[in-house]
Amino acid sequence: MLSPKARRLTQLLARLPGVGEKTAQRYLLYLLTSGTEVARELGEELARLPETLRPCVRCGNIAEVEHPNEDAVCAICRDGKRDGHLLCVVARVHDLVAIERAGSMRGRYFVLGKLLSPLEGIGPEELPLAQLVARIREDDVREIIVATPPSVDGEATALLLKRELGRELGDSALTVTRIASGVPHGGDLEFADPITMGRALSGRQKL
Amino acid sequence: MLSPKARRLTQLLARLPGVGEKTAQRYLLYLLTSGTEVARELGEELARLPETLRPCVRCGNIAEVEHPNEDAVCAICRDGKRDGHLLCVVARVHDLVAIERAGSMRGRYFVLGKLLSPLEGIGPEELPLAQLVARIREDDVREIIVATPPSVDGEATALLLKRELGRELGDSALTVTRIASGVPHGGDLEFADPITMGRALSGRQKL
Repeated sequence: MLSPKARRLTQLLARLPGVGEKTAQRYLLYLLTSGTEVARELGEELARLPETLRPCVRCGNIAEVEHPNEDAVCAICRDGKRDGHLLCVVARVHDLVAIERAGSMRGRYFVLGKLLSPLEGIGPEELPLAQLVARIREDDVREIIVATPPSVDGEATALLLKRELGRELGDSALTVTRIASGVPHGGDLEFADPITMGRALSGRQKL
Repeated sequence: MLSPKARRLTQLLARLPGVGEKTAQRYLLYLLTSGTEVARELGEELARLPETLRPCVRCGNIAEVEHPNEDAVCAICRDGKRDGHLLCVVARVHDLVAIERAGSMRGRYFVLGKLLSPLEGIGPEELPLAQLVARIREDDVREIIVATPPSVDGEATALLLKRELGRELGDSALTVTRIASGVPHGGDLEFADPITMGRALSGRQKL
């Protein structure tokens, strides 16, 4: 149906997460019919992406590349007003963005990049634990907030971090905390699933 | 939250149809973390898009550009085995692709690009009726299959085409037909809406 070049571009677009062949075709047809500027601008920015943005060498967040041959450091790691003794460990950059949106985190971050997942064959050796320990020692971190998601893999990763950090840094004054899990703001108790409700109860705090 | 360059790319990605800020961010983070090759390849193909693909000058389908300074003609219009006397009028290239997928259309196409829509302020003067008439005369078209969607705008456009083509080409042997509307294949009569069921009944054919 589509010409070879159109098919090739559709296949490339279909590599985006959650995009199938039909959506990719829709994107392509939009780009073809919406004037040439959108496609060209987007294309040029994407082609330049590896030179403009890179993972932050300290935390894994997105960082702008200042000098092509130097390691990139993100805005949060460069921000002198952040509390360097407070480090929030997240699974993905998406989670970091969500936490930053809340606006109440005054420390810095460490992006694991993946979660422990026996089902997907991801073991402890694939997590950047050595880098995390090095970062904690270097910045003299006092508190680690484990903000992995409250899923099976996220909880397993949190427990692993607690154990490994205890073993590596047992003699230090490091506190490892975990974000709260419970009924979300605006959520209806009636529709909370049993696990969430159980967590809301067991995680109760004095008023 | 995101750096200026990341924000700019997110905004560009969010111009794709159905893509909001969150999805655009997800695409960006995927492209950043999945190795540099996907972003670069996709970017280069997109930047080249205006030079490689263009609307077919005859029918509006996607056509590969052979020579930069010549009009592009699509594979269907160039296919000598197609019946030039049979012309299928569709609203969008998406619809052409869907019809081609069925594999039973042996004629050629004409893409209107838009439908008559009083609500969106699209009147008859915005439809390429003159081009359609010219195409019919040029190719000595005998049958026009109006394959606009069975929606309010699609039906209005079909009626407009019938009227305008009758006025312009009243003395010719042109037949204007409309694709059937009814209960879809595999569909359950129980769940058919009243309008579809009404059309299935009024459009009944002799067995």
